Formats: sequence, structure tokens, C-alpha cells
Amino acid sequence: MLIVYNNVHPRHHGRVEMFRGALVEGVEVPARVERVRQELVRRGMGRFELPGEMDLALLNKVHAPSFVAFLRGAWEEWVALDPGNAGRDALPSYWPIRAFRSDVVPDSFVARLGQYTFDAGTPLTAGSWDAACEGANCAITAARRVLAGEPAAFALTRPPGHHAGRDYFGGYCFLNNAALAAQALRDGGAQRVAILDVDYHHGNGTQTIFYDRPDVLFVSIHADPRTDYPYYIGYPEETGAGLGEGFNVNLPLPRGTDGAAWCRALEMALQRIQAFKADALVVSLGVDTYEGDPISGFRLTHDDFLRVGSRLGRLAMPTVLVFEGGYAVDDIGINTANVLQAYLSEGVGLAR
Amino acid sequence: MLIVYNNVHPRHHGRVEMFRGALVEGVEVPARVERVRQELVRRGMGRFELPGEMDLALLNKVHAPSFVAFLRGAWEEWVALDPGNAGRDALPSYWPIRAFRSDVVPDSFVARLGQYTFDAGTPLTAGSWDAACEGANCAITAARRVLAGEPAAFALTRPPGHHAGRDYFGGYCFLNNAALAAQALRDGGAQRVAILDVDYHHGNGTQTIFYDRPDVLFVSIHADPRTDYPYYIGYPEETGAGLGEGFNVNLPLPRGTDGAAWCRALEMALQRIQAFKADALVVSLGVDTYEGDPISGFRLTHDDFLRVGSRLGRLAMPTVLVFEGGYAVDDIGINTANVLQAYLSEGVGLAR
Repeated sequence: MLIVYNNVHPRHHGRVEMFRGALVEGVEVPARVERVRQELVRRGMGRFELPGEMDLALLNKVHAPSFVAFLRGAWEEWVALDPGNAGRDALPSYWPIRAFRSDVVPDSFVARLGQYTFDAGTPLTAGSWDAACEGANCAITAARRVLAGEPAAFALTRPPGHHAGRDYFGGYCFLNNAALAAQALRDGGAQRVAILDVDYHHGNGTQTIFYDRPDVLFVSIHADPRTDYPYYIGYPEETGAGLGEGFNVNLPLPRGTDGAAWCRALEMALQRIQAFKADALVVSLGVDTYEGDPISGFRLTHDDFLRVGSRLGRLAMPTVLVFEGGYAVDDIGINTANVLQAYLSEGVGLAR
Repeated sequence: MLIVYNNVHPRHHGRVEMFRGALVEGVEVPARVERVRQELVRRGMGRFELPGEMDLALLNKVHAPSFVAFLRGAWEEWVALDPGNAGRDALPSYWPIRAFRSDVVPDSFVARLGQYTFDAGTPLTAGSWDAACEGANCAITAARRVLAGEPAAFALTRPPGHHAGRDYFGGYCFLNNAALAAQALRDGGAQRVAILDVDYHHGNGTQTIFYDRPDVLFVSIHADPRTDYPYYIGYPEETGAGLGEGFNVNLPLPRGTDGAAWCRALEMALQRIQAFKADALVVSLGVDTYEGDPISGFRLTHDDFLRVGSRLGRLAMPTVLVFEGGYAVDDIGINTANVLQAYLSEGVGLAR
């Protein structure tokens, strides 16, 4: 399979994140992508390529230009506050609650930081922009290679993307790689694009970006937001708005869900995608549904990931897979490679 | 002057707060109130009393009952998450950004914690509820003593209150003592109540509680929110809504403002209050406008606080003073006592 690889991803390496009143070591580490790369190389199943020039116009179409400009300059502003900040990740301390104004742009950097995010668990570092921007580029490039005839392509990148919205970051995500891939497919001629999000966590960013659009179907299988991040969104009654009504499908599952129950939800998701008659598919591929994941609560096994890949392969749709979550580093390569290998074994992506 | 004193305030003692990406020692410490008490005792100018029974009905009128219930049970829920939390203050890690739902109540405690606050700088501790609730009680008691004929009373308490809204805490504040005093005055027969907030920081909680009401005038002199907390509110164009239009007055001043410029703003504030023909006055008395304050940026001197007190005393209005911010602990007693002593010297509160 064609793998579009982000070779600058290690420039983003958060030191700490807030968790239950303490600053703890982050789990979204560079080894996540490197283990996947190593496993794909070991199995001899990837053609690795680097992306080309970044399409900033597309980036500014999917994300708010003011947000993009903020992210690009954020580290410089952070260090300008205090030279000592160079040794510290930027994390927000304040944010606008309901009843506060949404139309002001404070001079204070820390105030603007809080306007653009929804958690204190997403450290913004010196290299976050470089890594996230090149990751967005990987996703766009993968989409364009699929438009050009490649049956499938995998954007192997971090930080992940599906929690990032049009004008906000969070959940370890800065730019929404899956949304950028979907928009690239749309702009390249696909009339209808489906996004299937199989990460353990609801893809709130992707949902909110396409919530009022009928041309991009968003379907997500994820942990019940009543108990799991992102908590405030991802409920089944969120079905889209305006022209987008009916084109957003949330399939939350309880903690403890095993592979069999999970795969039943997958069948529902795929039925909806096939009824939509999508011209192309984007998969937000998180493997934090794994039973050994340190921050999640589903119980998928190594073999379940083979089943997932096989089932996706049988769709025989032009497909862009984008790497999202998965924090069991020792198993992340096996789980991700299992999805891709089983996908390929169905024959669609055999032009490897 | 009658001082209604919160003798359980030390039960609230936050260990840390988030500031610029790090957990740092908090500045809202028990010594703040103790230094004020000692200075008032030293000058022989206070009759200290403890409050009576808490008026929970009034508390649930000014604050949302769901918020009150959350605060009351929060520490127990926090420790139930993990017994190790008993050694750690509760601070939020997540919050709902625009585009997230406002109508969901997640099961997750940490998710609900994030719904009820707007910063990660307000540690919720084992004793926060006890201290905040008794502080609210002090403010209500002070108001009722003024209704009963006391010319003025000072609620000497912490945590402070003016950043707490109807259904949110933050800015070191949990329950809005000044708003509770104002409502107690209204309920006790005052037709029109003015609140003058002279803390360095905008009293966003008080503003939002009374924003649509014409019976409580809110006037605040504070640091420009473009550069200073709470950043997202406190601008001069916020003049009230609906029936409350015209009854909210924000007078932001730039960092570096000295006592002379500050007192000119005070004259504008008092003109508005006198035009309103208030029956009673509540003063949110923060002394973090002091030139030596470690987290603020105005330049009022010890003598300026005498001027402030004298000017308030000359209003000759039934007045409830409520203690808010001020973090220069070594000078907090002098500055606060200077306001009260000069107030008394104008003769209004001489029944001491």
C-alpha cells in the first residue's frame, strides 16, 4: 500500500499534559508512528513516499484562516511572553465559558490560546506547527494519489487530527487530517465522500467541520461520550444540521465493548456508507480500540484488527486511511499493520 | 465597623494553580484574610461577628441549584474517582468549546467539572465548599445587618466571589458573595441596589448575574480585559441586555494606571450610582489595585486607599463591603484597613 509518511513528526513531542489535577507525561509520543513504520517495513507491505508542497489554500478552506495563523505563530508568541517558556509546553489556563463574549480578540496570547482549544491535554510545542502542517500535507497528498488512481493510501502521521475543528485544536490534534483528505477528494472530483471514524474517541472535529454539509457523510463508532472524552459531543441524536441533516451518524458504544459487538456497529456504519453511494472513503484509523490501550476501554484484539481491515477492503472503494489514536505503543505496529494487511489481502489495494 | 468574619476560610487552601503551562503555588492564601483581621484588631476599628444560619434558598436563587449541588458534592466525587486524588486539588482538564453541546450532562465528573468553570487556576479542595458557603453566609448576614439599620458592614471572607457566575466558578471564586449581598438587600426591601466593583479584575460573575436586570446596577473599574483576566468580558460596550440595558457600566483602565487616574474613574462610577438613586450599595472591595500587588498592574498607594474609603464614606449610603482580591499579603491589611478607616472617618459608619 502507498504510505505517505510524515518524516518531521518527531518535531512535535509534548512533555506534559493535564490529567486529573496534575501534569503527567503525555501518551501521544513519536514512537507511535515509528513502531507502525517499522512493522510495515518488516512485513514488506508499504511503499513509503513523502508528501509534496503543502496546499495552504486548502488548509485555509477547511480551517479558519485566523486559527491557522494563530497556530503558525503560537510558539513564537509563547516564548515572547517569557524566555523561560522555551523550556515549557504551552497549555491553556483560561477559556471563554458561556455568557462570556465570543467576538473579542484579546491582546493577551494566553487568552487567545484558550479561545482556540477545549482541553489542557494538548501541549503546543516548538515543533507542533511543523509536524501538524506536514501531517496535513500527508493526508492531502494521500487523497490526491487516490484521485490519480491509487486504490488506497495511508497517511502515516502524528499528531492525529480528528479532534481538531475548523477553529480549534485539542485531543492531541491541531489540524484535521481526515477532513483535509475528504475536502481534497471533493475538490478533486468526488461528488460524495464518506468519512468513517473508528478511533476509540469521537471525532468531534470532523463532525463539526462537515455538520451542515450533505456531500460529506460522517460516521463514527466510539466510546459513549457520557463516560469518555470528548464528553460534550458525539451523541447519537447529533444527525447533522440544515442541508447536512441526516449526514452525521454517531454510534457510541459502552466501555468494555468487545470485537464482536464493535463489528456489529461497523456493519451498521458500512450500510449507511453504502446507501450514501460515496465515491470515496476516508478512514480515521485509530487503533486505541485495542484491549491493551492504556487510556481507552474497548477490547478489540490483534485478530479483530484483521477483521476490520478485511471488511474495509471488501468495500472496494477508493480509500484514504489517516492515522489517528492508539497509545499501546508495543502493539500499535501490529494492530495498524493488521488492518492494512487484511485490507490489501482483499485485493483492492494490491497495486502495491 | 461591623465585620462579619468567616472563621472557616482556612478550610479552603489550594495547593497549586495552572499558570503558563505549569502548576504553581497559588496566591489566594489564608494569610490574606488573617492579615486584614489583625490590622483591624490592631487599629481597634472592628466589631467582629460570625454569621448565623445559611440561607440556602437565597443561595439557590442567585446561583443555579444544579451548580450549587455540584459544588457541594464535588470533592467527594473527585476522591471517588481515585483515592489518590485526596492529595491533589481538583482542576479541570476539559471544557465545552463553541460548537460542542450545552445541553448534555456527562456521567464523568471531570467532564462536569469542566462545564462549571472557565479556568484551571481555581483549585477545588476538600474544604472549598465549607469555606465558600460560610463566606456567602457572611455576605448575606452583612447585608441583613445593614437592612436592620447598621450603616455599613464588611464581610471579611475568602475565597473571593466576584468571578463566580450563576452557574460557574473560576478566578479563585466559587460563590458570588457580592451578588448574594445585593440580592439580600433587594429581598429585604431595597428597591434599587448598586454594586461598585473596585477589584483590579473585572467582576464578570456579578455582571453576568445581573446583566438583564434594571434593579441592580453594576459598575466596575478594572484592568483592560484585552490584557488582563478575565479577558473575554469586561469591555465598555457591555451595557446590559433587555430590561437591564443601561444598568451595566464597565470602566476598564490600562495597566500602569495610578491613583489619580483611577480616582477619576471612581468619580464617573459614583456619578452613575448617584444618578441611579440606589437605596443601598455593595462594594466588591479588592485591593489588588495596589502598586505592590504581585499579579496586577495598577499603581495605587497606601494613601490612595484612604482616598477611596473617604470618597465611599461621603456617599452616606447604607453599604455592604465584601472582600475580594488583593495578593500583596504584607500590605493587604494596611490597604484594606485604610479603606475602612477612611470610610468610617466620614462619620457614616461611626456607630462602631
